[in-house]
Amino acid sequence: MTVNRNIKRLLQYRTCLLRFKNLGFEKAFSYNLGEEAGVSAEQVRKDFSLYGLKGNKKGGYDINELLVTINDIFKHDKTHEIILVGLGNIGQALLQYKNFTEINFNIVGAFDIDPSKVKKKYAVPVYAMEKLKIFVQANKIKIAILAVPPVAAKEVCNDLVSAGIKGILNFTPVVLKTPDDVVVNNLDLQNELEELIYKVDSKNEND
Amino acid sequence: MTVNRNIKRLLQYRTCLLRFKNLGFEKAFSYNLGEEAGVSAEQVRKDFSLYGLKGNKKGGYDINELLVTINDIFKHDKTHEIILVGLGNIGQALLQYKNFTEINFNIVGAFDIDPSKVKKKYAVPVYAMEKLKIFVQANKIKIAILAVPPVAAKEVCNDLVSAGIKGILNFTPVVLKTPDDVVVNNLDLQNELEELIYKVDSKNEND
Repeated sequence: MTVNRNIKRLLQYRTCLLRFKNLGFEKAFSYNLGEEAGVSAEQVRKDFSLYGLKGNKKGGYDINELLVTINDIFKHDKTHEIILVGLGNIGQALLQYKNFTEINFNIVGAFDIDPSKVKKKYAVPVYAMEKLKIFVQANKIKIAILAVPPVAAKEVCNDLVSAGIKGILNFTPVVLKTPDDVVVNNLDLQNELEELIYKVDSKNEND
Repeated sequence: MTVNRNIKRLLQYRTCLLRFKNLGFEKAFSYNLGEEAGVSAEQVRKDFSLYGLKGNKKGGYDINELLVTINDIFKHDKTHEIILVGLGNIGQALLQYKNFTEINFNIVGAFDIDPSKVKKKYAVPVYAMEKLKIFVQANKIKIAILAVPPVAAKEVCNDLVSAGIKGILNFTPVVLKTPDDVVVNNLDLQNELEELIYKVDSKNEND
């Protein structure tokens, strides 16, 4: 579990570093990164020293160097094959989400309960749900994006698990139960919007 | 900034609490929540005491009570009006994302550089970008979802800020620069997927 906490923070640091770089900075201090990522400066220094990254009190950390190291940790040289399940609005949008192809993921198959409803031609082959297990096993797929309607989420999640999927990016608002060896990350649009609204409200109240 | 850190954690606690509830639990301990949210049990207790929530060492916290309190903090009784800018694949998918209407957000207007390309009929009115400023000001909109192509992100962000928007949910991978009084939350699909893949890889290596 400690590894997972570190990894979430590393990705937050990367987002912050990209922003700092964009703003024209070359160096960042642990307190800048801590403030942005919601942890203490000490935690930032601890995380970085774990990966052999060193800065100095006067000069801070080199932003470009940090970005290269973080991208190395996430194996940007390797392409990961993933599947997408559920071709509703969000699913079809994700199939066409061009930024995935620029990075290190590749959606190699898409699945829906009714592939005939998918009118548009996609570069990715679309299969019926019945083909899921054989496809996952034949292609040794470990990661799935789940974008089915909420009512189907639990059943499809079970299908994914029994097919051998070990990581699910869950776009449904349903809280999924999985065995210990299956990781679920929730991409919770509601939480993100609520957090944003809360921040805006508090800022206005303070003004 | 302290408020923002707390709020992110509260939303993470809520996701955890919903999962615990779903699993049949009635009580949760600070170490359960800390483990899930990536913070110490002490931090959980600190956060909860800030909102007057009390548990006891033997019995833990009442899950339902915590959920009610957290939802109160996010003002679930009030509807927030928001706009959506950019009607590409992700934008149109979000317009049809039914879970938004079940909670306390309401997309009241959508904007695109070319509204004529939007063939489908939506319940939400679709306007040309030129109408953005007048709409935002007339309706006192403070929150926008940004789903334009990456190449347009910076310019549209500037338009939003000058129209009076104070919070942006950024679906583009572009790192946005905004004035201090404008909050940007990045919904970073890349980060989420990378974190998931990393977790799955590390689990398999450890097995």
